[in-house]
Amino acid sequence: MHQIDSRIESSSFKITDWPLCEVRLKNNKQYPWLILIPRTPSLITEIFDLSESERNTLMHEITRSSQIMQNHFLPDKINIGTLGNIVPQLHIHVIARFKNDASWPHSVWQANTPDNAYDTDNLKQLINQLRELLL
Amino acid sequence: MHQIDSRIESSSFKITDWPLCEVRLKNNKQYPWLILIPRTPSLITEIFDLSESERNTLMHEITRSSQIMQNHFLPDKINIGTLGNIVPQLHIHVIARFKNDASWPHSVWQANTPDNAYDTDNLKQLINQLRELLL
Repeated sequence: MHQIDSRIESSSFKITDWPLCEVRLKNNKQYPWLILIPRTPSLITEIFDLSESERNTLMHEITRSSQIMQNHFLPDKINIGTLGNIVPQLHIHVIARFKNDASWPHSVWQANTPDNAYDTDNLKQLINQLRELLL
Repeated sequence: MHQIDSRIESSSFKITDWPLCEVRLKNNKQYPWLILIPRTPSLITEIFDLSESERNTLMHEITRSSQIMQNHFLPDKINIGTLGNIVPQLHIHVIARFKNDASWPHSVWQANTPDNAYDTDNLKQLINQLRELLL
């Protein structure tokens, strides 16, 4: 049965389920940041653990989420990454980056970055917006 | 005509051409680190700029390079990312990570990391090995 790692669950919000992935919003107000988690029956950690058909679906969902982020947030660049050094469950980050954001031009994955949780008011509105966009 | 950004060219070594991507070794002795650069006729910067068929080929080449890195270097985790905040030409990093490497469990993309070029002797051997593996 598909289960999301508790560390992903506690640091992000569910937006929707796509054919392969659960789509979540990372709780970090510095960047519009989605996380795609393949809903596989057993735990997998690498892209090569997916079947070829699942990989093509994953590529489609990465493309779709990137394109929606580009159209909606008008960022300067999309950053995409799958690392898993801390949380091994396969998950793919899709992040809208801006030339005036907190870590530009560096990656969002810096050692020792502070907590940047959303304020509750902005969050509800953003989640609702994303639910409409990502339907 | 396909042309590699000069900053990628000067910081990595060509290994081979695959159907979509030129495969290069990043000149960083801290990690086995490949870079895939789609050989598109014009400059593109995002995965959604590729056609669907090119994207599926890219996914295949990401999978193939990750699997070869896993089998050959036996890392603890594969890290994959496409950022492009500094060099916008679309390029995908495929990196073999180890629990005892220089930045574990953090990303390799830290601000202000020192130069970690290979020593010339080790480099030739590694490039030859990779050329055989990635043929």
